[in-house]
Amino acid sequence: MLDSDIGYMKEALLEAKKAEVLGEVPIGAVIVKDGTIIAKGHNLRETLKDPTAHAEIIAIREASKRLGGWRLHGCTLYVTLEPCQMCAGALIQSRVDRVVYGAKDLKAGAAGSLLNLLNDERFNHQVSIESGVLEEESAHLLKIFFKNLRKGKEDSKS
Amino acid sequence: MLDSDIGYMKEALLEAKKAEVLGEVPIGAVIVKDGTIIAKGHNLRETLKDPTAHAEIIAIREASKRLGGWRLHGCTLYVTLEPCQMCAGALIQSRVDRVVYGAKDLKAGAAGSLLNLLNDERFNHQVSIESGVLEEESAHLLKIFFKNLRKGKEDSKS
Repeated sequence: MLDSDIGYMKEALLEAKKAEVLGEVPIGAVIVKDGTIIAKGHNLRETLKDPTAHAEIIAIREASKRLGGWRLHGCTLYVTLEPCQMCAGALIQSRVDRVVYGAKDLKAGAAGSLLNLLNDERFNHQVSIESGVLEEESAHLLKIFFKNLRKGKEDSKS
Repeated sequence: MLDSDIGYMKEALLEAKKAEVLGEVPIGAVIVKDGTIIAKGHNLRETLKDPTAHAEIIAIREASKRLGGWRLHGCTLYVTLEPCQMCAGALIQSRVDRVVYGAKDLKAGAAGSLLNLLNDERFNHQVSIESGVLEEESAHLLKIFFKNLRKGKEDSKS
């Protein structure tokens, strides 16, 4: 882990909280290049009615726009939850150097939990992985969100 | 294979040709629901400078917009080249029922060639796969594109 990882993950957590306010599953991401945050994103799947509007995809698209090209060489993506298959694929497609994530996704994680697409040497690019950075804070946000969701459903039944 | 698969794949090939005209790797996709094409897309990675702008992602986003929600239940996606990891992931995320593809991608295909994300029962959704529909036409377009690309590079050296 790098000294700067915690600070950037805190920024990703702030993004996750923006998703929470909108009633979205609270997941946030930031992309850093040369010590600067060049893109941010939070989950907007329900708001945009777009299955690809995960925090990582939004941040990757913004970073590409900012850099003026689709190759994100030299970039690190920080995300509060382990990327799914789609987002792991997008990290490979965009040639991101490194991903740092908070909580593990034991049901769908494609960066070590269920499978590991990022270190698969059969692909033309590999992404280095750092996991467990601010894991508790990231997992806590999700836990509270789903707890409230279940509570809301139970309340509406009674 | 369904009787209608060839006709829809011809539409995907027309999309691929739109990409070719723009100097993009010629890959095209259409999404069909209840016998109607509800979305089309062609590769725009270079034009949009967006690593996620694959034909499938563009079509999935358009279909979601058209249907007013991110779940593409009852949809079939036709694409001229086997989906990569990112696009296979997007098919799972968007709950597409079925994918029909033309040419195999032996270097990066995530729907049977290099790996098979779509039939992985550990995920919360599986997508049925039909491969090899108008395979020769789909592969031929790509072959000519890369042949011309190499020729262009050689000509510029001489």
